[in-house]
Amino acid sequence: VPESLDTPVVRIDLDAVDRNIARMQANAHARGLDFRAHVKTHKLPLLAHRQLQAGAVGVACQKLGEAEVMAAAGVGPILITFPLVGDAKWRRAARLAREVHLSVTADSLVAVEGLSSALDAGAEVGVYVDCDVARWRTGVPSAVAAVDVALAVERLPGLRFAGLFTHPTPLNAGDVFGEIRDAFDGTGLSIPAISVGGTLTAYGHAPADAMATELRAGTYVYGDRSCLAAGVTPEADCAMRVVATVVSTPADDRAILDAGSKTLTSDAAEGVDDGLFGLVVDEPSARLTMLSEEHGHLDLSACPGAFAVGQTVEIIPNHACGVTNLHDHVDLHRSGGPTTVAAVAARGQVR
Amino acid sequence: VPESLDTPVVRIDLDAVDRNIARMQANAHARGLDFRAHVKTHKLPLLAHRQLQAGAVGVACQKLGEAEVMAAAGVGPILITFPLVGDAKWRRAARLAREVHLSVTADSLVAVEGLSSALDAGAEVGVYVDCDVARWRTGVPSAVAAVDVALAVERLPGLRFAGLFTHPTPLNAGDVFGEIRDAFDGTGLSIPAISVGGTLTAYGHAPADAMATELRAGTYVYGDRSCLAAGVTPEADCAMRVVATVVSTPADDRAILDAGSKTLTSDAAEGVDDGLFGLVVDEPSARLTMLSEEHGHLDLSACPGAFAVGQTVEIIPNHACGVTNLHDHVDLHRSGGPTTVAAVAARGQVR
Repeated sequence: VPESLDTPVVRIDLDAVDRNIARMQANAHARGLDFRAHVKTHKLPLLAHRQLQAGAVGVACQKLGEAEVMAAAGVGPILITFPLVGDAKWRRAARLAREVHLSVTADSLVAVEGLSSALDAGAEVGVYVDCDVARWRTGVPSAVAAVDVALAVERLPGLRFAGLFTHPTPLNAGDVFGEIRDAFDGTGLSIPAISVGGTLTAYGHAPADAMATELRAGTYVYGDRSCLAAGVTPEADCAMRVVATVVSTPADDRAILDAGSKTLTSDAAEGVDDGLFGLVVDEPSARLTMLSEEHGHLDLSACPGAFAVGQTVEIIPNHACGVTNLHDHVDLHRSGGPTTVAAVAARGQVR
Repeated sequence: VPESLDTPVVRIDLDAVDRNIARMQANAHARGLDFRAHVKTHKLPLLAHRQLQAGAVGVACQKLGEAEVMAAAGVGPILITFPLVGDAKWRRAARLAREVHLSVTADSLVAVEGLSSALDAGAEVGVYVDCDVARWRTGVPSAVAAVDVALAVERLPGLRFAGLFTHPTPLNAGDVFGEIRDAFDGTGLSIPAISVGGTLTAYGHAPADAMATELRAGTYVYGDRSCLAAGVTPEADCAMRVVATVVSTPADDRAILDAGSKTLTSDAAEGVDDGLFGLVVDEPSARLTMLSEEHGHLDLSACPGAFAVGQTVEIIPNHACGVTNLHDHVDLHRSGGPTTVAAVAARGQVR
C-alpha cells in the first residue's frame, strides 16, 4: 500500500465526476436554465474549472475565504451565497472584486450599505436579493422588503441589482416569487434573474415552478448517501468513497474501522432516517451505526463475522460536503486506476 | 475588529485551561493515579507541554499522525490509544519509536506481530492490551484473549507488556479487570498498569472501582457542553468558545449565525438530549436548533427579536474535540486580553 493510499483516505473517481457534471449541465440546458456550480462540495479549483469548461456560467462559494482561494486559482465569475456582514468581510470583498467578477447575496440594508462603502470607485458588484421563500434560513421576509433592498442596491455606489435568490426551493416558491415580481411592478426595476438551488430538487419540478432562470447545485458533483436516497445519483456515480481499514473485531457482531466522526462527520443523510453514518458498499448489511472520533462502529448482527482485521472497506458517506471539509488531501483516480494526491485548497475556509 | 478575530473564530482562554489542567492533575494525585493527557482535544503541542509540566506522565494520541506531530514538537512519552494495523502504519510507528518513548494499545495478534516485525533491532515499544470491558468498541473480548495477547507481546522482539487498557470505563470495569487479573495468575506475567479513560468519569468512582493505576482524559482541558451537563466543568472554565456573528434576522423568532456544521460539527453533546448544537452563553434562551454547513439557525421563540445583524455571540460547543479538528487556527487569550493565533498543528491527522 503506498502511504498516500493508507487509510482512512478519501478517494474521488474522476470518471464518475465527469458523468455527474455532464448530467447536471444537460439537465440545466434542457430546462433553459443557466447553471452555477457550488464549490463547497469539492473545494478543489481543479474541479471548479472543469465545471466551468462544461458550461457553468460561474461558481457559487459559501464563504468569502472559499471565494478568495478560488479566485487565486483563476476561477470565476463568483457568486458568494452567504450574507457578508462586518468591516473585515467588506474590505476583503472589495479586494476580491478587483480580481474577479463578483456577485453576492444579501437580505439586509446593513450588508449592502457596508459593502458599498468598502468598494473602490468604479467597482461593480452584483447583488442578488436573498428571499426567505421557505421561511427557514436567510432572506428578506416579504415582497416589500425585497423591493426595499433592491432599490437600495441600485442607489448605492458600486452595486448592481442582479436578481432574486433563494435556498432551498420549496414547492410554493413560484407563488412567493410571483408576489415579489408583482411588487416590483412600477418600481422601474426589472428582475434580471431568479436563482434557485439544491442538488436534491434540481431534477424535479421546483426550478420551473419557481420561474427560475438559474440553477445552482454542489453535491451532485460527488453524490453521497442523501443523493443516493433521493435517486439523483446512482451508486456507480457516487464519486466520493472513504476507504477504511478494519482495525478490530472484538465480537462476531462487531467490527471497528479506522474512520470515525473526524473522517466522516456526524452529519445525517438528508431524507434517510436509519441513523447510519454511511453505506458500506460491498456489504450493505454491515451497518455503520455509530462513530467515535476516530472509530467507526460496524454492527454485523445481520452478517456475523463478515470482516477480518486488516481488511479494507469502501464507504459512501452521508454528506460529501462535510467530508471534504475534514481532509487536507484527497486521492483522485479514474475508475480505480493510478491515483494522484490533490490538496483540498479551500478546506477550512469558515470566514 | 482585527482580521484574526473576524468570525467565526475559535477562542481559547488560557486562564481557564490552566485551571482545568490543575484541577484534573490534583484529582489524579488525590487518587494516587498517574495522569495521562489526551491531546486529541486541543492538538496543540503548546498545551501538551503544559500538561506534562503540570505532572502528566505522558500524553495519549488517538492517531499515529497526531503522535508524529507531537513528537516533532518535543512532546513525549506518547501512548497511541488506537489499534495500529497495516504495513504503512507499522513502518511509521517504527520510525517514531526511534524519536520518542512510544507505547501503543493492541487487541489482536495481527497488530502486535506486524508492529514487532517492523521495529528496529533494540527498539522497545510498550503494549497495553486493550480490553473490551464495556462490550462497545475495541478490545479483546475475554480474559483468556487478554493473556494470549500479553504473552505474544512478551515473546515478540521489541515489544514489552505495559499493562491493561480500556475505554470507556463502565461501572463493572472492576469485575472485568478482576477476572483478567485472575487469568494472569500462573502465567509468570505481572500487570504493570491498568489505564482507564474519559473526562466524564474521571471525578467519579469508576477509576477506583476499576483498580486503575493510570487515568487518561482529554476533553477536560477545554470543557464543552457535555462536560457542562455532566457537572465536571463549570461554565466559567469552558475554555473554548466559538464567536459567531448574526448575519441575518429574517423573522422575529429567527436569527442566523455565520457558524454552521463546518465550524461547530454536527456532534451531539453526550448526555444531553435537547437536540441543540451549542450553548449561546449570553442568551441561553436563544436555541441553536439547527446547523446548515455554514449557517447556525437560532430559534428565538423564547426571546423574540433578541439579536441584530452584526452582533456577535459566544457559543460553548457540544464537543470541543470535534471543533478543534475543523479549524486550522485558534485564538489564544488570557481572560479576554490580547490574543495570539496558534496553528492547530495536529489537526486533520486521521491516519
